[in-house]
Amino acid sequence: MAKLTKRSDDYSQWYNELVITADLAENSAVRGCMVIKPYGYAIWEKMQQELDRMFKETGHVNAYFPLFIPKSFFSKEASHVDGFAKECAVVTHYRLKNDPDGNGVIVDPDAKLEEELIVRPTSETIIWSTYKNWIQSYRDLPIKCNQWANVVRWEMRTRLFLRTTEFLWQEGHTAHETKQEAIDETETMVQVYANFAEQFMAMPVLQGVKTANERFAGALETYTIEALMQDGKALQSGTSHFLGQNFAKAFDVKFATKEGTEEYVWASSWGVSTRLMGALVMAHSDDFGLVLPPKLAPIQVAIVPIYKSEEELNKISVVVNEIVAKLKKRGISVKYDNSDNRKPGWKFAQYELQGVPLRLAVGPRDIANNTVEVARRDTLTKEVVSIDGVDAYVADLLETIQENIYKKALDFRTENTTEVNSYEEFKEVLNNKGGFVMAHWNGSAEIEQKIKDETKATIRCILLNGDKTPGKCMVTGEPSAQRVVFARAY
Amino acid sequence: MAKLTKRSDDYSQWYNELVITADLAENSAVRGCMVIKPYGYAIWEKMQQELDRMFKETGHVNAYFPLFIPKSFFSKEASHVDGFAKECAVVTHYRLKNDPDGNGVIVDPDAKLEEELIVRPTSETIIWSTYKNWIQSYRDLPIKCNQWANVVRWEMRTRLFLRTTEFLWQEGHTAHETKQEAIDETETMVQVYANFAEQFMAMPVLQGVKTANERFAGALETYTIEALMQDGKALQSGTSHFLGQNFAKAFDVKFATKEGTEEYVWASSWGVSTRLMGALVMAHSDDFGLVLPPKLAPIQVAIVPIYKSEEELNKISVVVNEIVAKLKKRGISVKYDNSDNRKPGWKFAQYELQGVPLRLAVGPRDIANNTVEVARRDTLTKEVVSIDGVDAYVADLLETIQENIYKKALDFRTENTTEVNSYEEFKEVLNNKGGFVMAHWNGSAEIEQKIKDETKATIRCILLNGDKTPGKCMVTGEPSAQRVVFARAY
Repeated sequence: MAKLTKRSDDYSQWYNELVITADLAENSAVRGCMVIKPYGYAIWEKMQQELDRMFKETGHVNAYFPLFIPKSFFSKEASHVDGFAKECAVVTHYRLKNDPDGNGVIVDPDAKLEEELIVRPTSETIIWSTYKNWIQSYRDLPIKCNQWANVVRWEMRTRLFLRTTEFLWQEGHTAHETKQEAIDETETMVQVYANFAEQFMAMPVLQGVKTANERFAGALETYTIEALMQDGKALQSGTSHFLGQNFAKAFDVKFATKEGTEEYVWASSWGVSTRLMGALVMAHSDDFGLVLPPKLAPIQVAIVPIYKSEEELNKISVVVNEIVAKLKKRGISVKYDNSDNRKPGWKFAQYELQGVPLRLAVGPRDIANNTVEVARRDTLTKEVVSIDGVDAYVADLLETIQENIYKKALDFRTENTTEVNSYEEFKEVLNNKGGFVMAHWNGSAEIEQKIKDETKATIRCILLNGDKTPGKCMVTGEPSAQRVVFARAY
Repeated sequence: MAKLTKRSDDYSQWYNELVITADLAENSAVRGCMVIKPYGYAIWEKMQQELDRMFKETGHVNAYFPLFIPKSFFSKEASHVDGFAKECAVVTHYRLKNDPDGNGVIVDPDAKLEEELIVRPTSETIIWSTYKNWIQSYRDLPIKCNQWANVVRWEMRTRLFLRTTEFLWQEGHTAHETKQEAIDETETMVQVYANFAEQFMAMPVLQGVKTANERFAGALETYTIEALMQDGKALQSGTSHFLGQNFAKAFDVKFATKEGTEEYVWASSWGVSTRLMGALVMAHSDDFGLVLPPKLAPIQVAIVPIYKSEEELNKISVVVNEIVAKLKKRGISVKYDNSDNRKPGWKFAQYELQGVPLRLAVGPRDIANNTVEVARRDTLTKEVVSIDGVDAYVADLLETIQENIYKKALDFRTENTTEVNSYEEFKEVLNNKGGFVMAHWNGSAEIEQKIKDETKATIRCILLNGDKTPGKCMVTGEPSAQRVVFARAY
């Protein structure tokens, strides 16, 4: 196997190589669209399972809405159209026909749609046009639907998982009687996302709200979780939007209140996507390959036999099969790799590349000594342990690894979060250190834009539970209510 | 609640009303595309879970391939282009812009794609263009991928679940070293579908192969499962295709054999879709609403309290909560409906409409007698049973119901399967009785077409394990190797 480019040499190149060589995804024949390969998809499925469970535990149900949205729907919510209806896939025809010249097929000009259809970049419009039929009275509320779906945003520059023309995601769309209930829902869901990121992805995140400049098109408030990647850049990992009554007004969705009056419905929407796969890779992996948190690893334990003869393999297999049975009984996913077309060294490197949290090796000497060699992917350390009780040992170790990966990422974030008090200092930190930079800002969109133009750094969020000490804007010296989080971002 | 149209009055109308009033699905603002509502989607999710488990148990992995397919790909496999590239959604542009006249947005003529993209009607072409990069040697085989996805086929006449422009499905695409291995895979998967239909949907199916006329575009052999609906029409419920080397040749996918030669790869593909939801509804339901087999019912048991005062409700709730806990412990999904905005009668009708297999009712007299009333949805019968051991009773009864629904459908099919020996008799049975008609046929595509034109009946399949007694074609009197299965079909 060819070695990966080192992170320190070219982080971006390292990422691209890793996603491809670890069999997570690859580019397809269609510009900007990716193929998610089985190993990558298995990780995504684990993410889906946990998120889906968390959504259901918080009272949501799944549904499915159309892929296509009539073009006119985008004009109904004024700010939404600017944010979403521009770079998108437009269906204009519904039939092909044989080329009269005999060169394959051509678009049939007679099969032109009266109104063009847009492949959904997000589904607020089609869903709120549907909710109009579902909602008459307060008895019909709340509605708390989620859908797992593909969406398309025509991106000029794409990168596997991080920014692709088509991507997979879930989008929740809720409808409520009151403003406060919709805000509570929005906050509940950003908390669900933060819990998922921290407890399953082992990725610490900051929770906050976006500035007006960075808000979702059509939202009154956008809540976000922001993670820090190993190159010091931030990655927005999930967002939850309080939409006010904007979509209800755009699609005329009113309800009869308990008091007999009529009111527009309040809304939220929230989503995470296959972008989380990119975050997972960039948050933890190293120059040898992926480092997966055990809770999301498709294979938690790989076992490799070391043998010279068929007879040795048979002896080893008897012992290993018992270990496998015990691990499976504990719900641990384990792969015994006794394939004979690769040497152990190749297998070791492969499981390292694919981020398998624990690798066990068993050779003739282990059989003689009743031991097994246990190698941790996160620390790259090895230990020889007794086969007696190895299942309990492995179960504990997987928990330790999950915690250790989180702690490592948290320590990294702590080291790479810097308070600055002047614009000079701000630029110096951005250029020499990167990471999250906590600075005072006067609250103006113009200054935010100026900082972005001059430094490529954006306000990632205003922390929900941050230090509320006031200060002076680092650019203008004007009053600032609290520090906000700046970073260069993906 | 308005009553459903009776099946005997207008089966088609009954179906449409039931799908909508039972909250399974509805038409959307986009012609031919449906919204799958939460209750309908919950049933689909149960289907997905079981199928996905069965696919994984038979050695398959999930992956994801692009939504879009370059137009030129469809010209590569000659018969595939005729079958699939015609009625489809064509993406021609990738940007909208504000209408200079101020009327919303228009398609930007400057953003025309060089090559149009087709929204996948099925994914053989994009997947085999990908497999080309995955396969070099026999060591890379077999590949056994499945994807859960949405597909689009531009249908002129659509019906909820049965035929929609966009639908959800899974499509398996496998690649093999040998012809026999690909055939074995094709047969394995049609058997998986049959098992799923019979064991989970409680729907008996015939297994067979399609005639050349009815084969998938690009297949050498199409295996099918065919179910009989209550109106005597057949519904194709799943297909598995042996594709030979057609797609490997179209996309130049060769592999180095163990012997060092080079050969084209052998292929299968197979799929089931949200059409199964339509089959489930039409196979079992009655004039009162859905009848769901317990294994696919989102709510298996609904419990309704009968009370006049808050005090009575409280007493009932104490008892019911214990029952709920015991049922949940057995893995039974149960809903205690103590909502106070509807009368018990309304609730009874609602759970009947939604096909909940068992309804328990508990009133003050039940509390006094330590009993509960248990109502079966499939037979519409009621019993009063002791609360002691009610959980075991319910668990057994759910199994009985699952079996009974299957048996009822099987009896119906047996009654509605007729052997005929003349074309006159054939037409008479079709017109007066419907169902599956077993008849001899000379094997010619022309006669098959003539029969279809004259009677609207098609050959549903040639049974894999049918009676192999030869005879004479009912139309021409020519020799026939075995009877084949005719029916009018959805």
